[in-house]
Amino acid sequence: MNFGIISKALGLLLLTESACMLPSMGVALYYGEGDAKALILSMILTAAAGLLLFGLSAWRPKKGIIRYKEGFMITGLGWVLACAFGALPFCLSGSVPTFVDGFFETVSGFTTTGSTILSDVEAVPKGILFWRSFTHWLGGMGILAFTMALLPSMGVGTLQVYKAETTGPITGKLKPKMRETAKMLYLVYGIITVAQIIALLTAGMPLYDSLVHTFGTVGTGGFSIYNKSIGHYHNPSFEWIITIFTFLSGVNFSLYYDALYGNFRTLLKDKEFQVYTAIVIVSIVMIAANINAFVFHDVSESIRHASFQVMTIMSTTGYSSTNFDLWPDFSKMILMLLMFIGSCAGSTAGGIKVIRFVLVFKIIKRGFYQLVHPKAVMTIQLGGKTVPEETLQGTTAFIVLYLIIYFVAVMALLAQGMDMMSGTSAVAATLNNVGPGFASVGPMKNFSKLSLFSKGLLSVCMLLGRLEIHSLMILVMPHFWKK
Amino acid sequence: MNFGIISKALGLLLLTESACMLPSMGVALYYGEGDAKALILSMILTAAAGLLLFGLSAWRPKKGIIRYKEGFMITGLGWVLACAFGALPFCLSGSVPTFVDGFFETVSGFTTTGSTILSDVEAVPKGILFWRSFTHWLGGMGILAFTMALLPSMGVGTLQVYKAETTGPITGKLKPKMRETAKMLYLVYGIITVAQIIALLTAGMPLYDSLVHTFGTVGTGGFSIYNKSIGHYHNPSFEWIITIFTFLSGVNFSLYYDALYGNFRTLLKDKEFQVYTAIVIVSIVMIAANINAFVFHDVSESIRHASFQVMTIMSTTGYSSTNFDLWPDFSKMILMLLMFIGSCAGSTAGGIKVIRFVLVFKIIKRGFYQLVHPKAVMTIQLGGKTVPEETLQGTTAFIVLYLIIYFVAVMALLAQGMDMMSGTSAVAATLNNVGPGFASVGPMKNFSKLSLFSKGLLSVCMLLGRLEIHSLMILVMPHFWKK
Repeated sequence: MNFGIISKALGLLLLTESACMLPSMGVALYYGEGDAKALILSMILTAAAGLLLFGLSAWRPKKGIIRYKEGFMITGLGWVLACAFGALPFCLSGSVPTFVDGFFETVSGFTTTGSTILSDVEAVPKGILFWRSFTHWLGGMGILAFTMALLPSMGVGTLQVYKAETTGPITGKLKPKMRETAKMLYLVYGIITVAQIIALLTAGMPLYDSLVHTFGTVGTGGFSIYNKSIGHYHNPSFEWIITIFTFLSGVNFSLYYDALYGNFRTLLKDKEFQVYTAIVIVSIVMIAANINAFVFHDVSESIRHASFQVMTIMSTTGYSSTNFDLWPDFSKMILMLLMFIGSCAGSTAGGIKVIRFVLVFKIIKRGFYQLVHPKAVMTIQLGGKTVPEETLQGTTAFIVLYLIIYFVAVMALLAQGMDMMSGTSAVAATLNNVGPGFASVGPMKNFSKLSLFSKGLLSVCMLLGRLEIHSLMILVMPHFWKK
Repeated sequence: MNFGIISKALGLLLLTESACMLPSMGVALYYGEGDAKALILSMILTAAAGLLLFGLSAWRPKKGIIRYKEGFMITGLGWVLACAFGALPFCLSGSVPTFVDGFFETVSGFTTTGSTILSDVEAVPKGILFWRSFTHWLGGMGILAFTMALLPSMGVGTLQVYKAETTGPITGKLKPKMRETAKMLYLVYGIITVAQIIALLTAGMPLYDSLVHTFGTVGTGGFSIYNKSIGHYHNPSFEWIITIFTFLSGVNFSLYYDALYGNFRTLLKDKEFQVYTAIVIVSIVMIAANINAFVFHDVSESIRHASFQVMTIMSTTGYSSTNFDLWPDFSKMILMLLMFIGSCAGSTAGGIKVIRFVLVFKIIKRGFYQLVHPKAVMTIQLGGKTVPEETLQGTTAFIVLYLIIYFVAVMALLAQGMDMMSGTSAVAATLNNVGPGFASVGPMKNFSKLSLFSKGLLSVCMLLGRLEIHSLMILVMPHFWKK
């Protein structure tokens, strides 16, 4: 293991993170709510730790490329370190009671989950809340991949870091001009961000609110600055804008990249995009019909809330326009399933991802065909290309592993006396990077009352979800540490 | 498609079923509760239909072997026909309000599920109840495979029928001397049956009760003749005997076959048996601790109820010694997961089966190893043999398909206004062939209040579970019907 290169990468990561706190400090100084000191101190501490790690690598210089193991170490340690130092503003400003709470909140931010332990978010100063939402935006674009792009040394391990932060199974090989691709994706990310800010401003949302809610939307995070989330405004325009941008944020960003070059047909002919859109429409229709019959008794209101909630949950953002915990179980079950399905690979969303279900359906279909034609050898095609058998095996195994982890975590919550609905939804909301669950962790409630153990456990679930399990879990495998 | 041979096999099946009603008629005549007439009429009708189908094949004689398609047709139609005619005693005796209810009850019997629509089972005459429990015993041994053994014509399709009724993925090829193997398995089945009857009689249970509860146990069905199930007796000996025999019935019967020849080490060294036993022990310990703290406050009582309930649920039998619907959510969640895990392949139990999880764990482990050693080619071994990659792919795909079907059925129940706990557990209890669920379909409740649509849907779930999905679902695939 080349510890020199790991230390260098992690040092650079913390230096980047420290610089990323600057806008929040600006906001804090502007509003003058007494949180600037905490932010300045956090910046200094993070930068100091970063310099120390960077210096360590200089003191023990070691050449060499980043191999697989180094790649995994950088990913795993990087995310944990970024979250630990990102928690400083919360802790130093006294916004959270314990470090575990601050860590939970920051993990929730960087992993673009949006679950919160703040029972009264409106009492927290604006600079801290800005940092809180900004972590969504940073996490969505993949802060580690961004840092790695600053490192000159390349190797399979660097690819590994990109792979870990890019969601979904990668069917082909990563493009050779990775750095150029990354730049284009950041450009797309930037364009969507600016577009939403303008849209919200035009609709009449204040600038500060527009910024934080845009970070929460395009990063598919979901932190709001109001206890009632988007429901605070009672403004249908805001809800529709966010509905549209959550939909856009759930699409594979590389399709936009193609569209930027005028290739719109690639987007429309993409199988995952088609299935994603179909699931969205069917879910909205089913929930709208259900809540129209039992809750709102008003078609347009039902359609609006159904669209908003379907998109915010399926894109794993987690904003709420109303208390959907009071909806009938049929609607809640759809939302629960959407949490697991998630959106498209290569988006900022969490969950299992639509593409994996597309592949699974093809595998199942092939299985039925081979029952009657046992000797037929059939490959599975996606977008005109044959998907390797290892990818197929990996996809189904991933889903099962995902569910095993889910149920282990649920059991750990229920063992502490949590009720079924709260426990099952709390893990679903965190592992899938959604945000709110149901019952005691519903959209009008929060995660503050959970035990410190549960908060730690759910923090791990959020990280496992964001890094799609393997990249993090590999670090606790005995064979990883064998020479 | 060779309809002649299908008609012949189905005719033979109904003739066999008619003959199987004879013991119940004997019981009805002995107790004289007025149900003998219904049973005699059922026998005549079933035999007549059987003769008609058998005659059809003679009138249009067609030689030839049973190929894959014929095998699937015989399996699918055979199970539906057997259940439809098996419902006659319930319908003709007036024990059930509609034919759908009678069909549900019979499917529940033959698939060894044990879910009931009878709100007051104690009011039903003894001959009918005997038939009801006897269907468990017949379904457990595989009535169709038994019928096929009577047919002289052999072919791949016959193997297909055996395969469909034998639970679990078959890793090797079916043994060539299939008919001899089947005979030995029936012998084992018979020995276990007689052993339990003797054990229950010795412990003081009346003969009639011993017979029906033995049919329910070794078939892992779970129909009782009391509204409170085994809890009716308040007799710990009965509970322990049933606990032990449900454990035994959840083991792969071919291991007993080896043990009969003195090869006990095969049993103890069998990976699936080891994992099965480990899950049983861990589950009992966790539930006993949980219910001791919150329900019983008595260690021995807690252990007894935990052992009974873990075994009866994991073996997918479904008897109850107490109202476990009142247990804490932690214990209920364990029971819910055990429903899905089920017992060993090659047993009479339902569920996904332990062996599939053993394989999945090996696949996941290999996936982690290959992350660090991407070029390593690794096969997966089980019992010293390499498992083919297609079997591995089939195993993970099966689990995902199973869960997709589960959630589709759950949504269909919730759409009718059923609550989350009742809906999720009703499908879990039927798809996994367990019997009782929680809440409105809990152990002290029943399925009578469900809509006819739901009863039909859950009947399909029971059949899908018993035939492990593919053998039944293939019949609705368009490619199956193409020339």
